[in-house]
Amino acid sequence: MPAPVPRQKRATIFDVAAEAGVSRGTVSRVLNGEPYVSASAREAIEAAIAKVGYVRNTAARNLATQSSGAIALIVHEPHSVFVDDPNIGAILLGINSSLSAADYQLVSLIIDTERDSQRVTGYLGGGFVDGAIIVSAREGDPISQAIADLRLPAVMIGRPDNQPQLPWVGIDNRGAAEQITRRLKATGRSRIGMIAAGLDRDSGRDRLAGFRDALGDGYDESLVSRQSFYTHDAGVAGMAELLRVDPLIDGVFAASDAVAVGALEALASAGRRVPADVGVVGFDDSAWARRAQPALSTIRQPAGDLGARAAELVLEQVRSGSPAADGVLLPTEVVWRDSA
Amino acid sequence: MPAPVPRQKRATIFDVAAEAGVSRGTVSRVLNGEPYVSASAREAIEAAIAKVGYVRNTAARNLATQSSGAIALIVHEPHSVFVDDPNIGAILLGINSSLSAADYQLVSLIIDTERDSQRVTGYLGGGFVDGAIIVSAREGDPISQAIADLRLPAVMIGRPDNQPQLPWVGIDNRGAAEQITRRLKATGRSRIGMIAAGLDRDSGRDRLAGFRDALGDGYDESLVSRQSFYTHDAGVAGMAELLRVDPLIDGVFAASDAVAVGALEALASAGRRVPADVGVVGFDDSAWARRAQPALSTIRQPAGDLGARAAELVLEQVRSGSPAADGVLLPTEVVWRDSA
Repeated sequence: MPAPVPRQKRATIFDVAAEAGVSRGTVSRVLNGEPYVSASAREAIEAAIAKVGYVRNTAARNLATQSSGAIALIVHEPHSVFVDDPNIGAILLGINSSLSAADYQLVSLIIDTERDSQRVTGYLGGGFVDGAIIVSAREGDPISQAIADLRLPAVMIGRPDNQPQLPWVGIDNRGAAEQITRRLKATGRSRIGMIAAGLDRDSGRDRLAGFRDALGDGYDESLVSRQSFYTHDAGVAGMAELLRVDPLIDGVFAASDAVAVGALEALASAGRRVPADVGVVGFDDSAWARRAQPALSTIRQPAGDLGARAAELVLEQVRSGSPAADGVLLPTEVVWRDSA
Repeated sequence: MPAPVPRQKRATIFDVAAEAGVSRGTVSRVLNGEPYVSASAREAIEAAIAKVGYVRNTAARNLATQSSGAIALIVHEPHSVFVDDPNIGAILLGINSSLSAADYQLVSLIIDTERDSQRVTGYLGGGFVDGAIIVSAREGDPISQAIADLRLPAVMIGRPDNQPQLPWVGIDNRGAAEQITRRLKATGRSRIGMIAAGLDRDSGRDRLAGFRDALGDGYDESLVSRQSFYTHDAGVAGMAELLRVDPLIDGVFAASDAVAVGALEALASAGRRVPADVGVVGFDDSAWARRAQPALSTIRQPAGDLGARAAELVLEQVRSGSPAADGVLLPTEVVWRDSA
């Protein structure tokens, strides 16, 4: 293959000034459309801009309106979860469908470390985006507070407690978890455990609370494995732990489909049949649920609709200049397949 | 939960001017650090900024240096592939590790439709990012040309033909595909097919060319199934097609691990044993390969290193102001497991 042709250095406002033989301030006044620049200087600057190939900084041009045409999607997850979680993928698709129809650019920002968090806060304050959608906010994370302080139009997917009162779009995680645990119990299971995950955010805590609601007096704290993230690996580790705690366990509610698929693998390795020996249910109804062997009984959550609705709520705020003052709950349903 | 407290509208430079009782131009001069503003006006403006909660537009502040502190990752894939492809995930992790160390913000932009493509081109020209990394560029797509025209520091992951000569980081897809096909053939297979994908980009074409190189005179065009994307679904459909074309097929090179896992499922559905009846090999050595049943023989490509190296090359260009003029090839290796 031929060697690349070296490209020229990007032209700056200084290059324009040098080419036109004027000061940078004069170029700046022309670029900002300010008066008191001679016609000859203006012509020289316009010719220089064309000659050096200077490209204007739109973000700067929009200083007065503070409009960038971009909306941030902020995901609080390790990058590996961002790319491994089909639920986040479906949310992203839903957001993009709404933003794309309105000709807004979706910009994805992932927060994994404390350093990421500080950097994203600075970025959001920099006028690079007109609004933000926050997924998987964790308790006490600084981003939501920073967004509230910036008065940036924003919507949360999920309903974290102890957070600034931003508008939100969510599902009833607690009610849905109770519903599927009751359904699992109704198959005649008597030793039901849970692989909980994401307990530092509302979805994880609410799913555990719903599990507890369903079992009532039968709830056994020792049959809850607490994992960090909604991942396949969490399912493998959590199921192994539950089998050690109670080898006679006969039902498991996994906090997500990815967790459930990990649990199915751990059960297969341990020689347990699903659903004959152990019934397993998940949460999400993602691609993982349909591909699982056996196909997973789970809660369908409208991930695409959550994203689309969140994007619409942000754009409404951007257009009106006023914050939305409300929350939106979308419905879920039990999808019963072969794993329980 | 309590109703959210309505937030105030975002403060603009006009609010600051009104509060301070000065003109917008005076506020602008203070914000830009220009001289010839009275001490009393400066104090009034600083007090007004604090009172109305005005947040400065960093993008605007950096007009002279044209620096945003952000680097775009541009992925030319359907959103569903972006979130389903662990290889892109590993690249993203590698990019982020390099950018994060240098305190640059990674901004992911996904191009799925023609409309996305136009919008992203406008965004890149808007001064929102200091550079770009392009993954999965397709032949004739307009983004790479737009980046060359903008003289934006950029690096491609992969080496597309018929593209502007941007620096790149890549692997020898053709050599690696030839190598693993030869290894598959050496297990005694005589009717070897391929499920090709991504033929509108260099990686897909090169993997098919390498397959052809390995088979030489034994290459049979009818045993190549041509699929659009590197997806699980492509593997299911491609394998079904190959089984129809030649029920005695005994070896398959799938263009990626995700494709290979789809092929394994189609073979299981058709009652074929792997590797006894049909040997299957993939490409990537992603999480899909390790989780497959049986574990997949594949090509390990250093996805994280590709991302990290691409990010370093972009930052070098941003710092030096000069384009990098070269390409970098990273090594691959055959990882032989149980599927062939």
